[in-house]
Amino acid sequence: MADKANKNRLQFRPHFKTHQSAEIGEWFRSCGIKMITVSSVSMAGYFAANGWNDIFIAFPVNILEMEPISTLAENIKLHLAVESEEAVEYLSQNLKFNVGVYLKIDTGYHRTGIQADDVSRVEKILQKIEKVPNLNITGIFTHAGHSYDVTSVNDILKIHNDSLGKLIKLKNRLSRKYPGIIVSVGDTPSSSLATDFTGADELRPGNFVFYDVMQYFLGACKPEDIAVALACPVVAKHKERNEIVIYGGVVHLSLDSVTDTKGRKVYGLVVKMTENGWGKPLNDTFVSSLSQEHGIIKAPDEVFNSIEVGDIVGILPIHSCLTANLAKEYYTIDEYLIKKL
Amino acid sequence: MADKANKNRLQFRPHFKTHQSAEIGEWFRSCGIKMITVSSVSMAGYFAANGWNDIFIAFPVNILEMEPISTLAENIKLHLAVESEEAVEYLSQNLKFNVGVYLKIDTGYHRTGIQADDVSRVEKILQKIEKVPNLNITGIFTHAGHSYDVTSVNDILKIHNDSLGKLIKLKNRLSRKYPGIIVSVGDTPSSSLATDFTGADELRPGNFVFYDVMQYFLGACKPEDIAVALACPVVAKHKERNEIVIYGGVVHLSLDSVTDTKGRKVYGLVVKMTENGWGKPLNDTFVSSLSQEHGIIKAPDEVFNSIEVGDIVGILPIHSCLTANLAKEYYTIDEYLIKKL
Repeated sequence: MADKANKNRLQFRPHFKTHQSAEIGEWFRSCGIKMITVSSVSMAGYFAANGWNDIFIAFPVNILEMEPISTLAENIKLHLAVESEEAVEYLSQNLKFNVGVYLKIDTGYHRTGIQADDVSRVEKILQKIEKVPNLNITGIFTHAGHSYDVTSVNDILKIHNDSLGKLIKLKNRLSRKYPGIIVSVGDTPSSSLATDFTGADELRPGNFVFYDVMQYFLGACKPEDIAVALACPVVAKHKERNEIVIYGGVVHLSLDSVTDTKGRKVYGLVVKMTENGWGKPLNDTFVSSLSQEHGIIKAPDEVFNSIEVGDIVGILPIHSCLTANLAKEYYTIDEYLIKKL
Repeated sequence: MADKANKNRLQFRPHFKTHQSAEIGEWFRSCGIKMITVSSVSMAGYFAANGWNDIFIAFPVNILEMEPISTLAENIKLHLAVESEEAVEYLSQNLKFNVGVYLKIDTGYHRTGIQADDVSRVEKILQKIEKVPNLNITGIFTHAGHSYDVTSVNDILKIHNDSLGKLIKLKNRLSRKYPGIIVSVGDTPSSSLATDFTGADELRPGNFVFYDVMQYFLGACKPEDIAVALACPVVAKHKERNEIVIYGGVVHLSLDSVTDTKGRKVYGLVVKMTENGWGKPLNDTFVSSLSQEHGIIKAPDEVFNSIEVGDIVGILPIHSCLTANLAKEYYTIDEYLIKKL
């Protein structure tokens, strides 16, 4: 992804909310990455304490966290996300140190942000920002999260082009008054699949560091690109239903699901742990339901018969960001084999 | 609930997986509770370290955790859940200290456990257990979790009666050879609504300590019984969609939902924080979607207009066990008012 950003002359500011790990952050640093994105003030604090000093908190600024925001702004190059005049007003009265500001733009996901075609609102907020000495306009950014709701690579590319097009149009409207403004994009499906980023200045994907079953179902990665699995002990088997019960539930995997081609809800795919990592997802085998600590795997006979109580199976998560957040710890394959849990 | 257990001459062994808090555990202790249920070895370790010495881990024993299980068994009165001959076999070879054993029985939920009418399998496992000096048969237990899948109080009571009936029938079949065996039940919907527990010996509900929106939708509690709310800062408003964006997402609330009478998916109800706690759920106002850190509230005009960026709203969780697990910390109303977050 760093190479892709380079080739497309994009500033690369990967999102660290997926891994939330200082150690994995070092892998990025060894690729020359210096700027990062996070989704909360506490995450920014964690990475700042681990030597990152150019951090964008890509979440509408929570004005109730002014104290830790000020501490960060005093110590690192901090960027905040703003989408309302109220927030700017509050920052103007309470922020004592310089921060960069990205305007959050809604290009069709409709989760949050200013409508991309609402130029007058954008200008109003920018005018307000201009008057505050501590606030420096960095750019406009979007999360085209509606790329997760479609079912074909073509549709993802359409959303990418449409979303980026809206930001470029907005930038052009603003460029006379605000010549330095940058355009920042970066949902993982678009970042993985698109080849044309003309007009964008910055790329902020996060999930690609691990990928997951959702990205695989979207066509944004291959199964063998999924780089994280939850190691789950097998605690029971039920032959009458071809079901395997694992110690691995909502508190470990979270509750996201995808629907497979047979219309079944899938809460995870299943792999066997090997000395070199893990194999391909097991044929026609999937996590069919989850409760707090239990996971239920449906498996055809040959898979069912090859797994015993006391084995450990790997679950490829539907949404790796959430599973990593819950697991809190990682083992590399080597560490895993040494510890064998 | 303790009173109810008392009146019905039931041994009360509340499930502590909902609150997972030593401090809240003390409230139970002050009601005279001495025995508890948990759902993992680590939870058992936590409560054992906090002075609880009669703990049932109501989850199919994970034989890969033999070391911490042995440590617990050495120090407290520990009970394990067993449902397979493999597990008994493993315990017989590896367990050095005495434990009590409950057999996990499936009375219709079909998550895990031995089918209630599979008497020969139950007897086979009991015979195996008998031969192991360290394993002492405590009882048979079920979690009638299918009481969460129905839509009327009557249906919940039917499941309670059916489920308890199956356990009693099984106990009667076993009582000549195993006269001391106890019958243990206790999903929160049944425990809250049923009045007849004849034949049961032990009650193990957990969720009732907080209740939640799911229990309210099931008819197992009233909205004012819900004793926990997630305090969420408001970070943006979108008048064109009557949507309020909060800092509160899947990593805080988890992703359970209920469907309301209008067919809408509800991920939480919304309350205003007051000096005495919080008020009723706001009229026609609900969390309509969640992503990693964002929550979206749909609200009618009068509610929408009464909430501003920078306010804190309370979200009544759909599934309080999961939300409490994610929040990790509690504030009482007094502490909350002092800190104002």
